[in-house]
Amino acid sequence: MAGPVQSIERAAAILRLLAGGPGRLGLGEVAASLGLAKGTTHGILRTLQSVDFVEQDEATGKYQLGAALLHLGTSYLDVNELRSRSINWADALAARSGAAVRLGVPLEGKVLIVHHVFRPDDTFQTLDVGSLLPLHASALGKVLLAYGAASLEPLVEAEPEAYTRHTLVSSQQLNRAITETRDAGWAAAVQEMIMGEADIAAPIRGQGGLVVGAVGVSGPVESICDSKGHPHASLVGLTRNAARAISRDLGAARW
Amino acid sequence: MAGPVQSIERAAAILRLLAGGPGRLGLGEVAASLGLAKGTTHGILRTLQSVDFVEQDEATGKYQLGAALLHLGTSYLDVNELRSRSINWADALAARSGAAVRLGVPLEGKVLIVHHVFRPDDTFQTLDVGSLLPLHASALGKVLLAYGAASLEPLVEAEPEAYTRHTLVSSQQLNRAITETRDAGWAAAVQEMIMGEADIAAPIRGQGGLVVGAVGVSGPVESICDSKGHPHASLVGLTRNAARAISRDLGAARW
Repeated sequence: MAGPVQSIERAAAILRLLAGGPGRLGLGEVAASLGLAKGTTHGILRTLQSVDFVEQDEATGKYQLGAALLHLGTSYLDVNELRSRSINWADALAARSGAAVRLGVPLEGKVLIVHHVFRPDDTFQTLDVGSLLPLHASALGKVLLAYGAASLEPLVEAEPEAYTRHTLVSSQQLNRAITETRDAGWAAAVQEMIMGEADIAAPIRGQGGLVVGAVGVSGPVESICDSKGHPHASLVGLTRNAARAISRDLGAARW
Repeated sequence: MAGPVQSIERAAAILRLLAGGPGRLGLGEVAASLGLAKGTTHGILRTLQSVDFVEQDEATGKYQLGAALLHLGTSYLDVNELRSRSINWADALAARSGAAVRLGVPLEGKVLIVHHVFRPDDTFQTLDVGSLLPLHASALGKVLLAYGAASLEPLVEAEPEAYTRHTLVSSQQLNRAITETRDAGWAAAVQEMIMGEADIAAPIRGQGGLVVGAVGVSGPVESICDSKGHPHASLVGLTRNAARAISRDLGAARW
């Protein structure tokens, strides 16, 4: 059995570094961030450049992500079964709830948005597909944590960021939220990432019954919650029904 | 000076293979397609899987693209200067022309769509960002060919596909179209990729004056062209103005 290929791991680390930072980095910055020799780093960057995974800015000589990644990312969406089986249910959920609908899967200790249906009105909205949300400050993330699709330990060790005064940051708070989510079968996050915004989410199970993602509605807190700040029961019901319908389509035996 | 890193080139080839084909491939199919030993291929695939660039379907054991690529692709768009400097001009072009607007850059002998503004009406439209168009059958592609941002030779050698009876496929036809595009400063493709559809495009120059991309309008042939099948002069003018404005914003000395 072959072991992991070190140069590919390093190439992936460079791409993640370029995606996570200010966008453009010089050779020295990349080498220092990854603790690699400049010569090694240069060889990897030149190879990544030759396959269009990385571009070099002519004026500054700095490196940034390349065009081939955009096509690969779109191709990922095209073959993603969770997304393709969810599209019609997500459209219906947006129409019935009057809220934006998002679908999340776990990636690198965060929630990756793989599908986003705009709130059915004419307000200005930007597409969240490809964005990463924090696990601990979104309903989508709490669902992934509660059902074992993402792990709490590394999150707690890294000291979760307090985005607002409502964000759950202690291990105790998060464990309680996880237990409540499991008991209820759904999660909410009310002004825990952005003041004035709230979301509700429910788990999507794949074949074999494991939770593979989460679907949720999100929007202004006054449209997601009642006057006491509790999520509207009708929105919870619609979200859970959509999650069950997607799970059934994915071949989950129970949902 | 370090040479290219072979395992990274192979990893990139596997990702391109998964993006270009039916979406899911078994170990044997990947190994055979790339002419590699199964053991080598397995080591690369397992490493790609460990960094979330590849996922393995539980039921079939087949490999498909992974979630990390979606985030990298979106991050590419976030730092793409051509796109960020074009967004406002593209919105204005769509509003003024009443047509869909797309921005293309060269990638692997095709046109990669990096930005897409929907036609300003309520008809059903799907987002083309991340899609690849043929160089020889789109106005965007003809512009990239005419101004040296993409090469004609490999295209002609590979025998360009005839999408419709109007598609230019011979070296002679394509060379004439390239000369005409250079003389005119813009290109059109009328029912050359899809019957009933047409597009118009003009070149975007970057710092230093080289053409780095193309911007264009597209839509039903009856809205892009007059009754004789010629592109509306007004749409050509709007498209060229937008291309010049973007070039100026990118720092091109002449446009």
